[in-house]
Amino acid sequence: MKLKTVTAAALAAATLGLSLAASAQSIGKPEDNIRWRQSAYHTMAWSMGRIKANIDGTYNKDQVIQAANVIQAIANSGLGALFPAGTDSGKGHKETRLKSDFFKDSPKVVEVATAFNKEANEMAKLAATGDAAAVKAQFGKLGASCKGCHDPFRKEE
Amino acid sequence: MKLKTVTAAALAAATLGLSLAASAQSIGKPEDNIRWRQSAYHTMAWSMGRIKANIDGTYNKDQVIQAANVIQAIANSGLGALFPAGTDSGKGHKETRLKSDFFKDSPKVVEVATAFNKEANEMAKLAATGDAAAVKAQFGKLGASCKGCHDPFRKEE
Repeated sequence: MKLKTVTAAALAAATLGLSLAASAQSIGKPEDNIRWRQSAYHTMAWSMGRIKANIDGTYNKDQVIQAANVIQAIANSGLGALFPAGTDSGKGHKETRLKSDFFKDSPKVVEVATAFNKEANEMAKLAATGDAAAVKAQFGKLGASCKGCHDPFRKEE
Repeated sequence: MKLKTVTAAALAAATLGLSLAASAQSIGKPEDNIRWRQSAYHTMAWSMGRIKANIDGTYNKDQVIQAANVIQAIANSGLGALFPAGTDSGKGHKETRLKSDFFKDSPKVVEVATAFNKEANEMAKLAATGDAAAVKAQFGKLGASCKGCHDPFRKEE
């Protein structure tokens, strides 16, 4: 079955018990949602950069925990609510890079969101142990799960 | 003693065992840091808006937990690292609104950051209980702690 809207995706995700379950509640104007989601992804990009800096340089367990906790909290925040129908165009901090395919292939959206949540939760778990080698390996998996959504649903700049 | 730089504030905060302790590690260019901190605050603004929508409308415990966890994770992420010296001017998503006073009154920075962390942690704790009345009261305290930094250190738009 090919679902047609992200609301349908949210329902499917809710059935799966995912954080996208909260997608039904969207607040703000379309441009607010675009700005908020751009902000959330930039905040995660900062956090990924921090983890990488710790892997490549001197490993500081506390900093990695802080960064991993931010990614985990945002990944589990019901980000789907920031993708109301029609926001494949519009300007937040800048013009959105969301492809229209996002609203046309909900099973894929659920798949990539589920994968991202899984890897984000695992990263937070491993960060707490302070095992730098495990964090390094997980960083690759988490990054791949980011790319798993960017490739089909984000326009190149 | 009047400390002169945010690095000094970070050291003071570290002494106090605060999350600003991670401030010493700054990655990225000045404009990256400005963009990342603008993103982090916008992400928290979204989360505050969600909590308010739940207080004013139908209360959904899970959504409030999601939003409170995002605020808590960002509040404890060592945001001080995003305020390297000299970033009282410069452009991230837009021109920074940071006042130069931020780098001139470190005890006040530590004071407002400490208050914000405390209220953010308390909000996450209360959100987990599902006590809507307690969350509503805490929303006022948390908002006041945001304002406690905006008033002295953020320019009006």
